[in-house]
Amino acid sequence: MVLDKDINYGINRIKIGIIGGGQLGKMMILEGKKLGIQFIILDPNESCPASSIADEQIVGDYYDASKIEELAVKCHIVTYELEHINANILIELKDKGYKIEPSPSTLKMIQNKYRQKQFLKGHNIATTPFEKVNTIDDIKSYIAKEGLPVVLKSCYGGYDGKGNKLIRKVEDIEAAYKLLKVEDRELMVEKYISFTSEISVIAARSTTGEIKIYPLSENIHEDNILRTTIVPARFMDDVVSKAENLALNIMEKLDGAGVFCIEMFIDKNKEVLINEIAPRVHNSGHYTLEGCNISQFEQHLRAILGYPLATPYLIKPSVMINLLGEEGIEGKAVIQGLTSTFEKQDVYVHFYGKEYTKPLRKMGHVTLLGEGIEEILERAEIIRNTLKITSC
Amino acid sequence: MVLDKDINYGINRIKIGIIGGGQLGKMMILEGKKLGIQFIILDPNESCPASSIADEQIVGDYYDASKIEELAVKCHIVTYELEHINANILIELKDKGYKIEPSPSTLKMIQNKYRQKQFLKGHNIATTPFEKVNTIDDIKSYIAKEGLPVVLKSCYGGYDGKGNKLIRKVEDIEAAYKLLKVEDRELMVEKYISFTSEISVIAARSTTGEIKIYPLSENIHEDNILRTTIVPARFMDDVVSKAENLALNIMEKLDGAGVFCIEMFIDKNKEVLINEIAPRVHNSGHYTLEGCNISQFEQHLRAILGYPLATPYLIKPSVMINLLGEEGIEGKAVIQGLTSTFEKQDVYVHFYGKEYTKPLRKMGHVTLLGEGIEEILERAEIIRNTLKITSC
Repeated sequence: MVLDKDINYGINRIKIGIIGGGQLGKMMILEGKKLGIQFIILDPNESCPASSIADEQIVGDYYDASKIEELAVKCHIVTYELEHINANILIELKDKGYKIEPSPSTLKMIQNKYRQKQFLKGHNIATTPFEKVNTIDDIKSYIAKEGLPVVLKSCYGGYDGKGNKLIRKVEDIEAAYKLLKVEDRELMVEKYISFTSEISVIAARSTTGEIKIYPLSENIHEDNILRTTIVPARFMDDVVSKAENLALNIMEKLDGAGVFCIEMFIDKNKEVLINEIAPRVHNSGHYTLEGCNISQFEQHLRAILGYPLATPYLIKPSVMINLLGEEGIEGKAVIQGLTSTFEKQDVYVHFYGKEYTKPLRKMGHVTLLGEGIEEILERAEIIRNTLKITSC
Repeated sequence: MVLDKDINYGINRIKIGIIGGGQLGKMMILEGKKLGIQFIILDPNESCPASSIADEQIVGDYYDASKIEELAVKCHIVTYELEHINANILIELKDKGYKIEPSPSTLKMIQNKYRQKQFLKGHNIATTPFEKVNTIDDIKSYIAKEGLPVVLKSCYGGYDGKGNKLIRKVEDIEAAYKLLKVEDRELMVEKYISFTSEISVIAARSTTGEIKIYPLSENIHEDNILRTTIVPARFMDDVVSKAENLALNIMEKLDGAGVFCIEMFIDKNKEVLINEIAPRVHNSGHYTLEGCNISQFEQHLRAILGYPLATPYLIKPSVMINLLGEEGIEGKAVIQGLTSTFEKQDVYVHFYGKEYTKPLRKMGHVTLLGEGIEEILERAEIIRNTLKITSC
C-alpha cells in the first residue's frame, strides 16, 4: 500500500510491515500494539518470536523479492529488524512509491562493511583503518604497512562475530583467507584495535528530520556476543560528549528515518572510533524498555511514521544481561530459576518465546534497575547464575 | 488442561485462558507475552481489543458453559477480565480439578452486590448501610429508617453506573423501581453516601498466600465513568494507613488468587467505607504500567501462577486519564491530536484498537508522570483537550 492520507485517520488504522520476526520484531510489535498499530511480519519461521502477536505473517525468506513486495503491498510502511535482507528489492519498491524506512539505500551502504567504512571516512569520522583485499598478498601488504594483529572480514553478512577472523601472526593469514573467501565474497582487512571499552549510542531520526539520542551505554561482549549492557557507561566522563557528537554527526549524514545503533570502541588513549552502524533497533538498547522514558521500539515507530520523538532520558541506572542458551544444551527450552528471580525487586524478565534452545542462542534478557551500577552489577551476576535456559 | 507438573518446565510452556478480550485482557496479554506466556481468549466479538494478540480466540459468550469448558480444557489455568460471566460453570470446572483464579466462589459472591456487602459486614468491614428490597414498600420503609437520598441497585450485573438509580425524593421511588425491577431481578437499597473522595487500592494475592498492595489511588468519576486516577491520592494523609489496612484485611478474608480492586469512599468525617470489590485488574490500576515498578497485569499473572509477587512502589507521581468516545459521535474511530500529544514529554498513550467509537466508550487512556500532582493535572487537562476520539 502506498502511504496516502490514511495516516491522518490515525495510528489505529496503520499497518506496518516488518521484515524479520525475531525478538526485536516481537518487542517492536508489543510496543506498537499499545498504540493500536497493526503489524504484518515476513519471516521464514512460522513459530518465530513475533509470530504469536503479529496480525499476520508472510512466511518467506528475507531475500525473497516477491514476498517482500507482497509485504509492501499489504502495508502502509515497511521496516526491518535485521540488516541481512534483500536491499535491492527495497530500493525498487521505494522507487515505485512504497514507504520503506530506514532508507533502503542507507541499508545497502551499511550492509557492505567496506562501503560503510568509506562513508564514515568520507565524512571524516574516526574509524579503524581498513582496506579492501582480494588476495593473500593484499593482506600481507596491509600487514606490512599497519602491523599485526588485523581482522579479516567478509564485507557482506555476518553478525555476532560470524564472518570475522582475527589474524595474530603471519601464519594465520592463509587459514583466515580460506575460511572467509568463499566463492567470490568481497573481503576487507582492518587494524585490530585493542580497545578498553565498547560503547553504543541508540539514536533515532524521524521522517521530519528530528534527531534524538539515548544515553551512552557500555557493552560487554564475550565470543563476539553481547552479554551485558551498562547504562550509564562507566569511566566515560571524558568521552561522553565526544561520542554523542559523533552519533549526532552520523545521524545527520545518514539518509532515512528510524532507530540506528552506533557502536564505538574506546581505545587506551580515550579515542572514540566508530566500529559499526546497525540500521535498526539493537540488543544494546533493550534496557530502554524499563530504564528510559521511551523504549527504542516506540521511538522507532514514531520515527518511521513521522511523529514527534520523545527526548530520551534514563529513569534509573540500568544493567541488561542476555539470557543465552547454556553451553552443551540443545532441545526444547526449559527455564530454571524463575521463582527465585521473581523474589528479587527491580528485575524485569523477558523471554522471547523460542521453543528450542541451543548454545549461546539469545533466549531472553533481564534488565535490572537500581541506584548505582556496581550494586546492580552484583545483583545481575546473581540473576545470571540463577536464571538458566536448559532443556528437558 | 488440568495443571500438572508442566509448570515446572517453565513459564514459556504455560497457556492461560482469559474470559473476556477487552482492553484489560489485551494489556494482560501484552505483559504476559514479555514472559513468553501463551493466551487463549473467550470473547463473543471477533475483533475485540485482545483478539489481535491472543494466540487463539474462542468466539463465544461469557455465559456459554460449553465454551468456557472448552477454554478450561485447552489451558493450564483460566482467569477473567470481567466479572459478569458464568460463575456456576467455573465452580463446576474447579470441582473437576481445573485451575480457575480468582476462585469462582469468590467471584460468585462478588457478582451479587448484596452478598458482597454481607461478606463485608460479616467481617466487620465498614461499608454503606444496605438492605435487600422486593417491593416499593420495602424501599419506603428503608427510607423511613435511614432517610433520603438512597441508591436502588440491581444485585446482579451493571458496571459504569448501569443498574443503579439514585432516589433523591419519595416521588422518584416508583420510577427507579420500574427501571430496575426487570423480570425477577433481585434489588437492594443503600444509603447514598455524600463522599468527599473516591479511592481504590489495587491488591494481589498469590496462590502461595503472599499479599501485596499498590499505593492508594484517587479516582474521579463523572456520570459513573472513571475519568481520572491520581496517585498518590491527594489530601489522604489521615486515611492512607486505614485504607491500606482495610484492603489487606479484605485480601486476607477473600478466597482465591489474583489482582483485586477495592474501591472505597471517604466521607466528610474522613471515614473510609468500602464501596465495592472487583475480582480483576481494574481501570484505576492502568497507571501501574508506567507509574510503578510492576504493572497490575504482570502482578496478576504472577499471582495466579503462584510466582512471588513484586512489592509495588510508585516510580513517580502519576495521573491517568481515560480517552472516551466524544459525545454525539458514533462510527469508525479517528484519533485526533496525536502529533501534538507526542510533542509532550512523559506522556504514555494507549489505544485499545477498537474500530468503532460511541459516546463515552473507553477507547484508550493516557498516563502522565511528573514531579508533582498539580503540575501533572495541568498537563493532563491539556492532553484531554487535545487528544480526541472522533469519527470520519
